[in-house]
Amino acid sequence: MVTKNQIKTVKSLQQKKYRNQLGLFVVEGRKVTEELLQSHFVLEYLFATDAKMGESLHPDYVEVGQNQMKQMSGLTSSSGVLAVFKLPERTALNFSDWILALDAVRDPGNLGTIIRICDWFNIPQIVASEDTVDCYNPKVLQASMGSIARVNIVYRDLKGFLQDSKTPVYGTYMEGENVFQHNFPDQGVIVMGNEANGISEGIGNLCGTKLSIPQYGEHTTESLNVAVATAITLGALRGS
Amino acid sequence: MVTKNQIKTVKSLQQKKYRNQLGLFVVEGRKVTEELLQSHFVLEYLFATDAKMGESLHPDYVEVGQNQMKQMSGLTSSSGVLAVFKLPERTALNFSDWILALDAVRDPGNLGTIIRICDWFNIPQIVASEDTVDCYNPKVLQASMGSIARVNIVYRDLKGFLQDSKTPVYGTYMEGENVFQHNFPDQGVIVMGNEANGISEGIGNLCGTKLSIPQYGEHTTESLNVAVATAITLGALRGS
Repeated sequence: MVTKNQIKTVKSLQQKKYRNQLGLFVVEGRKVTEELLQSHFVLEYLFATDAKMGESLHPDYVEVGQNQMKQMSGLTSSSGVLAVFKLPERTALNFSDWILALDAVRDPGNLGTIIRICDWFNIPQIVASEDTVDCYNPKVLQASMGSIARVNIVYRDLKGFLQDSKTPVYGTYMEGENVFQHNFPDQGVIVMGNEANGISEGIGNLCGTKLSIPQYGEHTTESLNVAVATAITLGALRGS
Repeated sequence: MVTKNQIKTVKSLQQKKYRNQLGLFVVEGRKVTEELLQSHFVLEYLFATDAKMGESLHPDYVEVGQNQMKQMSGLTSSSGVLAVFKLPERTALNFSDWILALDAVRDPGNLGTIIRICDWFNIPQIVASEDTVDCYNPKVLQASMGSIARVNIVYRDLKGFLQDSKTPVYGTYMEGENVFQHNFPDQGVIVMGNEANGISEGIGNLCGTKLSIPQYGEHTTESLNVAVATAITLGALRGS
């Protein structure tokens, strides 16, 4: 049984304000729910329109009607599985490995894809500026495909964080040292910038080394998407 | 002046069937229109809701009302500039450089991003299987951001094409030779597979070398998005 109040609560979790107020976030779909159930995240509610599906996921699932699911879902067509988890405690950062820093990445799809790329390349930590899109935004979770369970994401004053960094800080720019030829140390921070404006000046001043993905041939592509640039940069880092 | 018939024609170009029948395709937005005007593509019509904007783009622009633009546009909110170009003639392939081959890439956003990545890394040719999404689909053009003008894309029976290839054929897989450690020759074909199923068996049999982007650390990310995987692979190829 799901109450009207619960439906209202679940629906409100589409908004960051209520996620933070209630300390909860919502995911939809069997696969991502399964991945989060197997992770450190703590389940609050699990709703399913199909009893078999619900049972296969968790003994405490709640069966709901199509209509109720529709009311709770943030998707145009619900997948039939919706789970609410507790927002995790803030965890400390570990400087013994690489950290990806994001300066005002705004697009949920980009952040989700970046989380997935970090997971692939074992970059276990992301430090995001406070104006980066919230990683518990349902669209981010949709794009990150469960990788959110394996990458630690913290929101900080990025300037303060970089000022205090004891490891080298790299910024990615249109002009800079060739990312494919750089000898990377064992630890450091790589900063990726905003979709439209790149890395802001204040943050850029704290980047000890400017890296760039060289363009090949003669042409005029203006830029690469930030998720694509992250993939190429982390590939160069881990593959070198 | 724009006639009712023209409006109908422009609107129909959202569909592949009519694009091929009429030999035309449509783009929206100032920036992509500008890039295509400076390219080998031949303009058929240019519509703008703002006279100054229209004039700045092309002397033969046609001024239209907001309402007419809305009827022609495929976007939920039109940018005020819409251009119709002639579909280009089929051009021959040049085997003296790398070719990217796509086996049933279905998502327009992915294809658009892949075209942009090819442009960046100077991979001037894409051979797409006949079931790959049409590169003149408006959503592809939106994501490719004018790179369509610099990358030659042909649709072929991919099996036949690979059978006849005189340069080495590489496939990208979950398991294979480490893409970061491979010594690439000066020419070849790299095959990227479908979003859900990867490279089909018949095509895979024609790949002389299987490449893979290694996963780092212990985790369970299932796969990378095909555009992200293309970016990393071409980065490894050009950056090596």
